[in-house]
Amino acid sequence: MLFRLEITFRKRLKMKKKEIHVGPYLYPMPVVLVGANVDKRANFMPIAWVSIVEHKPPMISISANQNHYTNKGIEENKAFSINTPDENMIIPMDYCGLKSGKETDKSSVFEVFYGESKNVPMIKESPLNLECEVVHSYDTQKGHSIFIGEIKHAYADEDVLHNGIPEISKLNPIIFSMNDNNYWKVGKHLGRAWSIGKNFELK
Amino acid sequence: MLFRLEITFRKRLKMKKKEIHVGPYLYPMPVVLVGANVDKRANFMPIAWVSIVEHKPPMISISANQNHYTNKGIEENKAFSINTPDENMIIPMDYCGLKSGKETDKSSVFEVFYGESKNVPMIKESPLNLECEVVHSYDTQKGHSIFIGEIKHAYADEDVLHNGIPEISKLNPIIFSMNDNNYWKVGKHLGRAWSIGKNFELK
Repeated sequence: MLFRLEITFRKRLKMKKKEIHVGPYLYPMPVVLVGANVDKRANFMPIAWVSIVEHKPPMISISANQNHYTNKGIEENKAFSINTPDENMIIPMDYCGLKSGKETDKSSVFEVFYGESKNVPMIKESPLNLECEVVHSYDTQKGHSIFIGEIKHAYADEDVLHNGIPEISKLNPIIFSMNDNNYWKVGKHLGRAWSIGKNFELK
Repeated sequence: MLFRLEITFRKRLKMKKKEIHVGPYLYPMPVVLVGANVDKRANFMPIAWVSIVEHKPPMISISANQNHYTNKGIEENKAFSINTPDENMIIPMDYCGLKSGKETDKSSVFEVFYGESKNVPMIKESPLNLECEVVHSYDTQKGHSIFIGEIKHAYADEDVLHNGIPEISKLNPIIFSMNDNNYWKVGKHLGRAWSIGKNFELK
């Protein structure tokens, strides 16, 4: 397997590069449910524009359209939650993306629980929940707000942990592909990071 | 399948939530090769802390430890590239994470090409390349710099396109799971976004 990958990695050199229209091309994207209380009621939205941005302390960033109802709650409370969906949650998760909290009360889609912070709603059905405090925000001037949250508390179901740390193969998380709007599972194991590259020899 | 997912999504309500140590828990993460010229020589690093943050114009953010050699090049040129690795590139990609440009000249790991901007190196072996101009940067004060780049040009191999847009199943991109440091493939299709949720009925 390793040998095959190594010898074929230059196969694309024969192909001709083509300039294409610019777009939000990142593959794959994770998808999470972001939670916030808006006017004291829990609201959730699926977000694929999410990234870890700092290690110690851990920080996570999200980018969300300023029209989203959830944004109002994040700004009110200076806090939000990140709820990792299990693939079994795909239907209610997508429902949260179809309906805005402006018209639909989404507080009963999931069972809501609160942690240390009493104004950050989290999803009980979700195997992993992060309670985040906004430490910085940035307006792109083109419609989206980026919120950087410090992860203050983390909660998980015991069965998704390995040595106390959540494990991807136990979480069954969901992948999003933008532009064609599809959800996918995580597939086969490919190799170990900071390890498989030791087999590379620079010519 | 849909029915099974729907009826089992509340199965976790029986489980007990446990507070765990905070950490950079985002599952899954994409992994891309970020490129920049440092002292006029092409350098590349794998980055999993990456996210789209704006649609029109498309913008992408990366967060990178300030010790990285590539950061120097991004700051010098106010520009970087995002190169989506095909799974065949996993060994040289991981190699780029094992070696720093401070000690190892990584300019010959891949075949480098340039687009409109003559100072943004891109990887020919990679099926999708984005040429980005830094529009904003943010220092987390804890070791990492966040760079937000506007995607000014995009280049792709013809065989990964569907109606002119890159398609995840043709790209064979790589998923990273942090904390246990593993690479994975994208797996099975789960459903259509902004669609599958129409099957949900709020009780």
